Amino acid sequence: MIRVKKLINAADDVVAEALDGLTLTSAGIARLAGSTTALRADLDAVREAGHVTLLSGGGAGHEPAHAGYVGAGLLSGAVAGEVFTSPSVDAVLEAIRAVASPAGVLLIVKNYTGDRLNFGLAAELARAEGIEVATVVVADDVALAADAGAGRRGLAGTVLVHKVAGAAAAAGLPLAEVVRRAQRVADTVGTMGLALSACTVPAAGQPGFLLDQDEAEWGLGIHGEPGVERAALPPARDVAQRLVAAIADDRAITSGQRVVVLVNGLGATPPMELSIMADATARELRKRGITVERLWAGSFLTALDMAGVSLSLLPVDDELLAGLDAPTTAPAWPQTVTAPEGAIVPAPAPAASGTGTLTADDPVRRALEAVAETLISHRDELTELDREVGDGDLGISLARGAAAVLAESPDYPGEDGPAAVLRAVSASVRRSVGGTSGPLYAILLLRAASALEAAGPDDPGRGWAAALRAGADGIREVGGAEVGDRTMIDALVPAAETLQTQLASGAPASTALAAAIEAARAGVESTMSITARRGRSSYLGDRVIGHPDPGAYAVVLWLSSIASTLAPA
Amino acid sequence: MIRVKKLINAADDVVAEALDGLTLTSAGIARLAGSTTALRADLDAVREAGHVTLLSGGGAGHEPAHAGYVGAGLLSGAVAGEVFTSPSVDAVLEAIRAVASPAGVLLIVKNYTGDRLNFGLAAELARAEGIEVATVVVADDVALAADAGAGRRGLAGTVLVHKVAGAAAAAGLPLAEVVRRAQRVADTVGTMGLALSACTVPAAGQPGFLLDQDEAEWGLGIHGEPGVERAALPPARDVAQRLVAAIADDRAITSGQRVVVLVNGLGATPPMELSIMADATARELRKRGITVERLWAGSFLTALDMAGVSLSLLPVDDELLAGLDAPTTAPAWPQTVTAPEGAIVPAPAPAASGTGTLTADDPVRRALEAVAETLISHRDELTELDREVGDGDLGISLARGAAAVLAESPDYPGEDGPAAVLRAVSASVRRSVGGTSGPLYAILLLRAASALEAAGPDDPGRGWAAALRAGADGIREVGGAEVGDRTMIDALVPAAETLQTQLASGAPASTALAAAIEAARAGVESTMSITARRGRSSYLGDRVIGHPDPGAYAVVLWLSSIASTLAPA
Repeated sequence: MIRVKKLINAADDVVAEALDGLTLTSAGIARLAGSTTALRADLDAVREAGHVTLLSGGGAGHEPAHAGYVGAGLLSGAVAGEVFTSPSVDAVLEAIRAVASPAGVLLIVKNYTGDRLNFGLAAELARAEGIEVATVVVADDVALAADAGAGRRGLAGTVLVHKVAGAAAAAGLPLAEVVRRAQRVADTVGTMGLALSACTVPAAGQPGFLLDQDEAEWGLGIHGEPGVERAALPPARDVAQRLVAAIADDRAITSGQRVVVLVNGLGATPPMELSIMADATARELRKRGITVERLWAGSFLTALDMAGVSLSLLPVDDELLAGLDAPTTAPAWPQTVTAPEGAIVPAPAPAASGTGTLTADDPVRRALEAVAETLISHRDELTELDREVGDGDLGISLARGAAAVLAESPDYPGEDGPAAVLRAVSASVRRSVGGTSGPLYAILLLRAASALEAAGPDDPGRGWAAALRAGADGIREVGGAEVGDRTMIDALVPAAETLQTQLASGAPASTALAAAIEAARAGVESTMSITARRGRSSYLGDRVIGHPDPGAYAVVLWLSSIASTLAPA
Repeated sequence: MIRVKKLINAADDVVAEALDGLTLTSAGIARLAGSTTALRADLDAVREAGHVTLLSGGGAGHEPAHAGYVGAGLLSGAVAGEVFTSPSVDAVLEAIRAVASPAGVLLIVKNYTGDRLNFGLAAELARAEGIEVATVVVADDVALAADAGAGRRGLAGTVLVHKVAGAAAAAGLPLAEVVRRAQRVADTVGTMGLALSACTVPAAGQPGFLLDQDEAEWGLGIHGEPGVERAALPPARDVAQRLVAAIADDRAITSGQRVVVLVNGLGATPPMELSIMADATARELRKRGITVERLWAGSFLTALDMAGVSLSLLPVDDELLAGLDAPTTAPAWPQTVTAPEGAIVPAPAPAASGTGTLTADDPVRRALEAVAETLISHRDELTELDREVGDGDLGISLARGAAAVLAESPDYPGEDGPAAVLRAVSASVRRSVGGTSGPLYAILLLRAASALEAAGPDDPGRGWAAALRAGADGIREVGGAEVGDRTMIDALVPAAETLQTQLASGAPASTALAAAIEAARAGVESTMSITARRGRSSYLGDRVIGHPDPGAYAVVLWLSSIASTLAPA
């Protein structure tokens, strides 16, 4: 048995199972019993309203085509054959019978010999049974000369034929008028594609052609058949330029004309690339002076798992636009933007951040400078410690932040109080320190500032203790680490708790701070026997045992520096 | 410069260009000037209504996430970093300012260290500016143990958090209630994925891991990081079974519970395979007695061009269901089916096809038998001719049809007249002959029957001539071939025209028919100097020169057989 790398069960079951999945995820689509034909679940109402019904289809492998276009305002039914194989005459005939309406049935057929014959014969048989049937054949492929081989192939432009015909039928127009509008689209829409990879038919197990790493195939069909030229893949803007040029030349679309555009993914094209192609195509058309009335990007008519894109351009007037804009419940029809120009809104002004003055004898500035100088002088030690257990950037990061604080501290808003100064320090750190330590310290400082403000000026010791505790909590919350995870939290939390406890029991500030530093130091010791669970060290497993966590050690360093500025000189 | 095979321009521009494309194809989504942040274009109205606003985002490469979820009833904004890189604190802060509402802002953050820190710090800064900000972190990946490394990752379940929160905000609920509902989803949704291929970051040019032809990667993340196990890809039903089991076990989802299901393509997964996975997943859940309330399949949160799928299961109650069902204009949110059971409609009964009797001495039966015997006796000659210019099946196909006609002709409805008999012959041919010749002859016979009927019984000669002409026209119309295309048309059309002309000028039937056969024979001669433009021969180019077209030659054979039964014995 051939086993291909696809999310399928047996190759023989893919068409039926995909249709079952579609009926589960789409409103109002039913499966015709014993077949792979999709039908509107409300066909009786359509017939009673005296509306023309629409049947499309062909070989499977083009999902969401064609069953995804079944719905109010679009197809009444879609008949599928095996993958890339036209449905049998009897399958088409049964589908025609199922959708038959007193107002008549329109068959929309892509120009492939098998589809033409099987739909054509089924139409004859249905007529012999008294069903009024008309047919529109779509041959929108401009990569082939108009008089080539078996004629031009039907490609993604078929979806636009469906939509205009579906709107006409839903409006209650007679069969001849529905045919006329569908034929207008079929006669004027042009499509050309580019493949980045071939596709693999489940039952075959091998792609139809192979491409080198940088090669793309221009002008291919939707059945994995090779295209008209193989060449290195150019940038998206050049892809758009060539496809637009080929279609515009063939369909005589020139400056001043109005068009709609379908950017179609061939099955394995990521949404990001389709959006980039939509942008590039809109730019190319604007450059040519062609007005883009509507622009859709998505996977509308695919070729199994082929990577690549096709562009369809349809010149439009108000009649066709109204049909394209008419509502539909079909799940594969996309949202429509009526004037695709791309909206840009201006950014709001940030809150003003004035500068101030922090005098050299302000105790907060003295503490900041002491911390900064300590972190700078311990840069190499921290770097070395971090190299044992992490990526070695902690010493450099903290020293860079310290240098920024030293440079900027004279302009901190000392006149607005210590909370405002801490917020300014936070901004210095945020701007100068990347990685994780910068944001974490910036958060610590912001939370500390708010806690200090909330505590008020009456008991500065308790205010600073609450600030340290709030800063530690902020890091736990945002960073997600807890005590025992081998991070700076292992020093910070015991220090903050000790400081609060000591002050609450009446200890003097210097004593309380000394105890807090001891608690932090014990926390650092404890990290030597912990396997990391957070941060970079978590990738190293037991290799970190015996080494202290450098982030926790840095906490001891800066707490000690602060204490040194408070102690009697 | 690294050149990857993607529809992009420069690797540095992919995020901005994809967002520009999205704003062109999506209604009501604007780009924040100078950023890669998407915003609802109608934010002023949201703020005036006093509604909570929602901001999500993270690294790019997950399109349509997150910008595709911007819209009424869903996100107010989405901020994107570079591919797979958290947006900077300042980018997030600017986005928060842009969406800020008096009712508050909810940030929805996936559980990655970078996102937690950058969104967390930006939230702190926004709060310091007086903006009320709450955060919900999503960590829905059940492939990792709940206490693993940096914690569980945020995956596609995030989309469901967006939706429920978006509906709550649109309903005018206060921030605390929006948070509560979002948190309910974040706490209970479970997701696990399977990759069939790795993805390639545009700027890197190389996939993050490589898989052998039959290998798949279970439990991977959405940044191309390897998963928890590598193994041969099983059938879709087994993929569904394992993913459902992993999520249900982890989230304690058991028989009798109600869930919604998100079948998510990872970027390069074709719609057909997503539908098959949706079907397989629904079957697996039904087998477990779990009620599927809603089922969506599509590409909701991708990993660039990764092939594969993730499943998300969310246990629901009426409150969550109402949020999921609430309307939204966001382009990436799919159509919802409220009771996904899959609808099947019975096939209509075909028109009755009674049997009859065609007596052995009926001239039509004698002509049919003569034609059949001739085609059978010339089987090898036709096969040989066809081998020179086609695929060699013509002799076998026509002989098979002839045998069917011989076997079935006694039961043809002779009592209903020759037109009814021709329709019965058409059915015999249609059922017994495949390829292109079966449908084409079946059409010829149907059209001939109608023409015969229309001509009436007064002048049988002219009736049969009109029938031949109508049959030829039917083949031209359905097959798309004209005289000079090297097909049976090259014999059929001159024969039909000659027959009509001769009869119109008063020639006896046998003379007219003889002249028609001569015209057909001349047509066959003419095909020897034509390069084929239709059918199989069109692939052979000049190699067919000098060989007659076997389809045209077969016309001479059966016309001559008919003539032999009309000539005086």
